[in-house]
Amino acid sequence: MSQMSQISKTPLTIPSLHAAYQAGTSPADIVEQVYARIAEVNDPAIFIHLLDKSEVRQAAADLGAFDPAKPLWGIPFVIKDNIDAGGKPTTAACPAYEYEATEDAYVVAQLRAAGALLIGKTNLDQFATGLVGVRSPYGFPKNSIDPDIVPGGSSSGSAVAVGHGIATFSLGTDTAGSGRVPAALNNIVGLKPTLGTLSATGVVPACRTLDTISIFALTVSDAYAVFEIANAYDAKDAYARRFTAGALTAAPSKMRVGIPDANSIEFFGDNVQKASFRQSVDILVQSGAEIIEIDFTPLYDVARMLYEGAWVAERYTVIEDLLKTNPDAVHPVTRAIVSKAETISSADAFRGMYRLQDLKRAAEPIMAAVDILCVPTIPTFYTVADLEADPVTPNSNFGTYTNFVNLLDMCAIAVPAVKRSDSRPGSVTLLASAGQDDLVASIAQVFESAVPHTLGATSWSYEATPLAAPQAQKDEIEIAVCG
Amino acid sequence: MSQMSQISKTPLTIPSLHAAYQAGTSPADIVEQVYARIAEVNDPAIFIHLLDKSEVRQAAADLGAFDPAKPLWGIPFVIKDNIDAGGKPTTAACPAYEYEATEDAYVVAQLRAAGALLIGKTNLDQFATGLVGVRSPYGFPKNSIDPDIVPGGSSSGSAVAVGHGIATFSLGTDTAGSGRVPAALNNIVGLKPTLGTLSATGVVPACRTLDTISIFALTVSDAYAVFEIANAYDAKDAYARRFTAGALTAAPSKMRVGIPDANSIEFFGDNVQKASFRQSVDILVQSGAEIIEIDFTPLYDVARMLYEGAWVAERYTVIEDLLKTNPDAVHPVTRAIVSKAETISSADAFRGMYRLQDLKRAAEPIMAAVDILCVPTIPTFYTVADLEADPVTPNSNFGTYTNFVNLLDMCAIAVPAVKRSDSRPGSVTLLASAGQDDLVASIAQVFESAVPHTLGATSWSYEATPLAAPQAQKDEIEIAVCG
Repeated sequence: MSQMSQISKTPLTIPSLHAAYQAGTSPADIVEQVYARIAEVNDPAIFIHLLDKSEVRQAAADLGAFDPAKPLWGIPFVIKDNIDAGGKPTTAACPAYEYEATEDAYVVAQLRAAGALLIGKTNLDQFATGLVGVRSPYGFPKNSIDPDIVPGGSSSGSAVAVGHGIATFSLGTDTAGSGRVPAALNNIVGLKPTLGTLSATGVVPACRTLDTISIFALTVSDAYAVFEIANAYDAKDAYARRFTAGALTAAPSKMRVGIPDANSIEFFGDNVQKASFRQSVDILVQSGAEIIEIDFTPLYDVARMLYEGAWVAERYTVIEDLLKTNPDAVHPVTRAIVSKAETISSADAFRGMYRLQDLKRAAEPIMAAVDILCVPTIPTFYTVADLEADPVTPNSNFGTYTNFVNLLDMCAIAVPAVKRSDSRPGSVTLLASAGQDDLVASIAQVFESAVPHTLGATSWSYEATPLAAPQAQKDEIEIAVCG
Repeated sequence: MSQMSQISKTPLTIPSLHAAYQAGTSPADIVEQVYARIAEVNDPAIFIHLLDKSEVRQAAADLGAFDPAKPLWGIPFVIKDNIDAGGKPTTAACPAYEYEATEDAYVVAQLRAAGALLIGKTNLDQFATGLVGVRSPYGFPKNSIDPDIVPGGSSSGSAVAVGHGIATFSLGTDTAGSGRVPAALNNIVGLKPTLGTLSATGVVPACRTLDTISIFALTVSDAYAVFEIANAYDAKDAYARRFTAGALTAAPSKMRVGIPDANSIEFFGDNVQKASFRQSVDILVQSGAEIIEIDFTPLYDVARMLYEGAWVAERYTVIEDLLKTNPDAVHPVTRAIVSKAETISSADAFRGMYRLQDLKRAAEPIMAAVDILCVPTIPTFYTVADLEADPVTPNSNFGTYTNFVNLLDMCAIAVPAVKRSDSRPGSVTLLASAGQDDLVASIAQVFESAVPHTLGATSWSYEATPLAAPQAQKDEIEIAVCG
């Protein structure tokens, strides 16, 4: 854990900041703290575009007097640089792709309207293709916990910034696991909502049918509060779904939690991670969960569709012009992955969809047998040196428990677990069917409160939020029929 | 209208046949009537495979005593030859594609279990590609009303057989309108259910994501009775949806019916069809409908995706091997259409899906403003000679009011209207959002009962079925979240 100076005296969680504001701290003070912390961390690869402090101070001044009705009043945040901020460049970590955004992404506009203060735009695996965080021509952010470990990606800068206590929360995006893997690697929460609940307007797509904005924060409560504000129906996003997020509650008294069975669980030989996951399962049992061991093979079959199947053609649609006119502008690993689409026909694309539909049907009994799944967010750790030796295999392995999730239209939340015996961060991800975002977040919060931990890479202590009584469990998801 | 001899003394509607069975007629008598009628019609191009009469007589004998608990007891039916019947060949109207089916298609099995008697397998536009019914190496069935007119397709033989009073009902399939256009051309009912409500197991696909089995019958009541029996969830069909059909009722007291406005309605200069449609709208008004004129441009934009967009690649997946190894085995018009897929990339396929999603969003306000749509089933008529002169344009024009329907996940029912002033059959199609099959069929039955008419090409009179009170209108469709 990095040592923090007196600079970071006010923990950046929403309750802590709002208590400070209520007590007379000014948002200008917090802006000072944020920029001092950025200087202290001194990792220029976190940001692709850091706002001038004067601009953020002005935005803070424009907020006027503290207004508790604005749920994000004075809350500093950062966004991944594939998400637009009005008047700022968007690069998707590719200088040749850069354009100046004319307006905020729809979700960014919701957050600013709720009082949040944008600090900057963060580094990423180029075009959000990767789970490692080192595939960027802008350098790569150092992992906030241990600089030898990769930061995780593709939302590398967004996760590292929150881990360091630079921002209260950040926006990432998640197609294959980009909003969860970096959370695990930086000891923070990664909320990957149901597809279509957060508008994609003003976001550079990766796979448009599978993408979502995701949220990093230091606590489940903060992440979910941001989700509730960000979740607003946008008629201009053709993939948007009408959805009302339920409130966080205590965990339901009966919950069936599926975990990978002994034959299908995979740690790539990392016995410390195996022990960590066992410990997390024990915490769930102590919270009243019934554990059901499940053969994950059908889910892994789905996962393989993402990079081995036709969906890579979605990424190709985004950068086809660049690949044809200026291929050297694309990161070589990204180029190798995305160019595969050139050998995939339209018939292959439909065959891929048929195969996915068959696999979805085969996976249905799994979700019918449980309320949620609990998986290790990542199966093991990889270092920067590992990625230098092999830029592909560690990336694929990182996706073991994430790649199938969006293809199966599940929601997810990655949450810190007990620190591993080697001091690396523990993390599990809770998964449920579309629309159960409130359920997974509620159970995640129960889990989080049972894990003694400090927040991210900071020395701030976790403080539990009081929980409401559990809701009656919903039989049906109130999401409209789609496509 | 063709003159029927004394042979066809018993009208083949389900209520009429069941009354005859109750009164002592034997199913063997009806089998005799059916085969005598086939001989009388004397159009060998209706069937690709007609069962031996002895086999049907045996099936009739196996039924035992009349059992009113079997809703299709002793009811003769035929199926399009892209649907399997156990032990019989399936050709999809392509001799080189022929295989012997090991078992009944899932839907055929449901119908036989309910007592229905399979008579034969019918001709079609090869691989269900076409709306005209003349694209088959097995010749083409003559239109049952007027042999100069095309029979309509792709479910040509299935529609003509019902029109002639050879079978009580038939199965077709419908991707672009193959279950509706031939209904209009043969003065019968064509029920095109919500996608996924009838199993696709044992059906040769056209566009697997857009196909459904459809039902032809002489009356709405018969078609819907068959639908209720055929509709059973099949876990082996990955695109199946769990759905329970509501009962037919009287029309709701308030119903908002959308029709194409003056600028977007299209009859290709056929003023007789224009007058016929006006007359149908008047009947709806007399039944209590509020008519809302709608700009259909967004729906036509969707329609164009079907053949101009990526979906032709779905057809390609079905016959790729044949096109590569034995291209001359494919009908030249079909080959020209389907081969276009070779120039469409996987990226194009996804771009097509994005475009469709955008168009779906643009079309949403249309369905939000009405309960159902009412359209002419076909905009005009084409003769066999027209198709010989131009095999493509008349086919495209036939799809004006049908091509967008499955892409937008609507259900539909084509129903006979008042005979046109030139004695050609009138027909309208009622359309609603997925899952509203009971609503469109109920309103279709009200409409049908207000139209004095004989059934198909027969001299049998229409007899109204008593109607139950209307159900409370459903706010939400109980179809599970998909895709």
